[in-house]
Amino acid sequence: MLGHSFAGAHDRVVVTRTDQAGVRITAIDCLDAELPFDPERNTASRAVLELVLLANGEDQGFALEVHKGIPLASGMGGSAASAVAAVVAANALLSTPQEMEVLYAAACTGEAAASGAPHGDNVAPSLMGGLVIAPRRGAPVRVPVPDWLHVGLVHPHCRLETRESRAVLAAPFPLDQVTAQLEGLALVFSGCYQGDAELLKRGLYDVLAEPRRAPLIPGFDAVKEAALDCGALGASISGGGPSVFGWFASRADAERGVASMQSAFAGVSLASDAYVGPVAGPKAEVI
Amino acid sequence: MLGHSFAGAHDRVVVTRTDQAGVRITAIDCLDAELPFDPERNTASRAVLELVLLANGEDQGFALEVHKGIPLASGMGGSAASAVAAVVAANALLSTPQEMEVLYAAACTGEAAASGAPHGDNVAPSLMGGLVIAPRRGAPVRVPVPDWLHVGLVHPHCRLETRESRAVLAAPFPLDQVTAQLEGLALVFSGCYQGDAELLKRGLYDVLAEPRRAPLIPGFDAVKEAALDCGALGASISGGGPSVFGWFASRADAERGVASMQSAFAGVSLASDAYVGPVAGPKAEVI
Repeated sequence: MLGHSFAGAHDRVVVTRTDQAGVRITAIDCLDAELPFDPERNTASRAVLELVLLANGEDQGFALEVHKGIPLASGMGGSAASAVAAVVAANALLSTPQEMEVLYAAACTGEAAASGAPHGDNVAPSLMGGLVIAPRRGAPVRVPVPDWLHVGLVHPHCRLETRESRAVLAAPFPLDQVTAQLEGLALVFSGCYQGDAELLKRGLYDVLAEPRRAPLIPGFDAVKEAALDCGALGASISGGGPSVFGWFASRADAERGVASMQSAFAGVSLASDAYVGPVAGPKAEVI
Repeated sequence: MLGHSFAGAHDRVVVTRTDQAGVRITAIDCLDAELPFDPERNTASRAVLELVLLANGEDQGFALEVHKGIPLASGMGGSAASAVAAVVAANALLSTPQEMEVLYAAACTGEAAASGAPHGDNVAPSLMGGLVIAPRRGAPVRVPVPDWLHVGLVHPHCRLETRESRAVLAAPFPLDQVTAQLEGLALVFSGCYQGDAELLKRGLYDVLAEPRRAPLIPGFDAVKEAALDCGALGASISGGGPSVFGWFASRADAERGVASMQSAFAGVSLASDAYVGPVAGPKAEVI
């Protein structure tokens, strides 16, 4: 129900109005070859189909080229990024551009084509930038974050399918874990709104998903510890994994943090990529 | 993990230094006759015993008179109120007054004597005033709330034991409910920090405890609906019940709300008391 964007890897979608009705994928530029061309199953085209529907179907005929820059199944929100990019681009071509709430709903529908459910936790920050609440209904809500707050994210070169990663969350959660998670969220929000690193440090933990998903990520414990040893306010799994992130009180801390996290992944023979940027990251834009 | 104080019913504890070692209850002024005089089992004395321990046991000898103003088993945090009042009064008599974090830990230990677990959700707001995060460790954290935000609370004249009310929460919670609750908390926090009634309205719901506890409270559905019909931003069970509260955007709305909520309780033959006050309520004080 919460996520943030960051500068680094990104998807790009080229949307063109055509005379032919419907929404088509004309090209997919991706190192992996398995993304679907079926408009109903590709996140980008599925999102545009929904946008056209929500905009009362007046505009018809879109051709999409999808250029993937975010690695698949990395926990970096790639499927949402394509959906958001497509929606933002298509919206700029509509005769009646739609409100944020409509763009959000459309992109969530696209996301569902990939992940099986219309979760907005990646869609909302891609759409609005920065740290954003992703509600089940209504418009997303931006949360201000201090400008010194930086994320360090390390993506190991292995894959973890969102569906598999979500399956381990199927068993229900005991009340004490739920309460602890709510407490952490409350402290993190207070830390963000008050610009207080100590509150962020007290609250930035995950007792629900992390313990269940960590065994799916080789070296996770060592990577997390590496981040914390470098002063991370907290560190956990990015999305469904296998990427791991830390939040740091400065860019310098984050730079040191990702170097150490990459070493820890190397210790289990995993090469990796690293990204550092403000938690108040960018949003999808027409370029 | 979160609670707020409000002006209205309150407990008062008179603490006196004595030459005799230990902590004694000398009097309990309460309409119900069942509160224990055993220092280990009474929340007020148990809290002071813990305070003395945490303050290194230098000061010994306290006599406590407990004047209960908050009805027992009402969901209004009465056991925490006694514990906090006792700790605040005893602290004023210590040769080395203790920090907030120590007072909080001591009062939580007192609360545990009554409820079976050291939950701080009533202790923290009684101790600090207003809306307060009650963490499992460390000092509580105040959350600013808009001054127009008022609570209307109605206490029906029936009792619901905290232990019974907690028992219905024993079964674990599915992920979608947990996510919905986290989303609500995020929206409420943003509403408080931004002073935005619309965000409060979007987030002020309880999908975890309320559905399980509502059947224990006669007329709950009608009372909640009465509050919402009078413009409540949200309404739910106070503590473990049977009291029901609503948050309102003005004192006038809250006054209308509680009148309507009392009528709804009357519809199931329950008399009730009503309280209205700012969500930014008072804290325990030495008088």
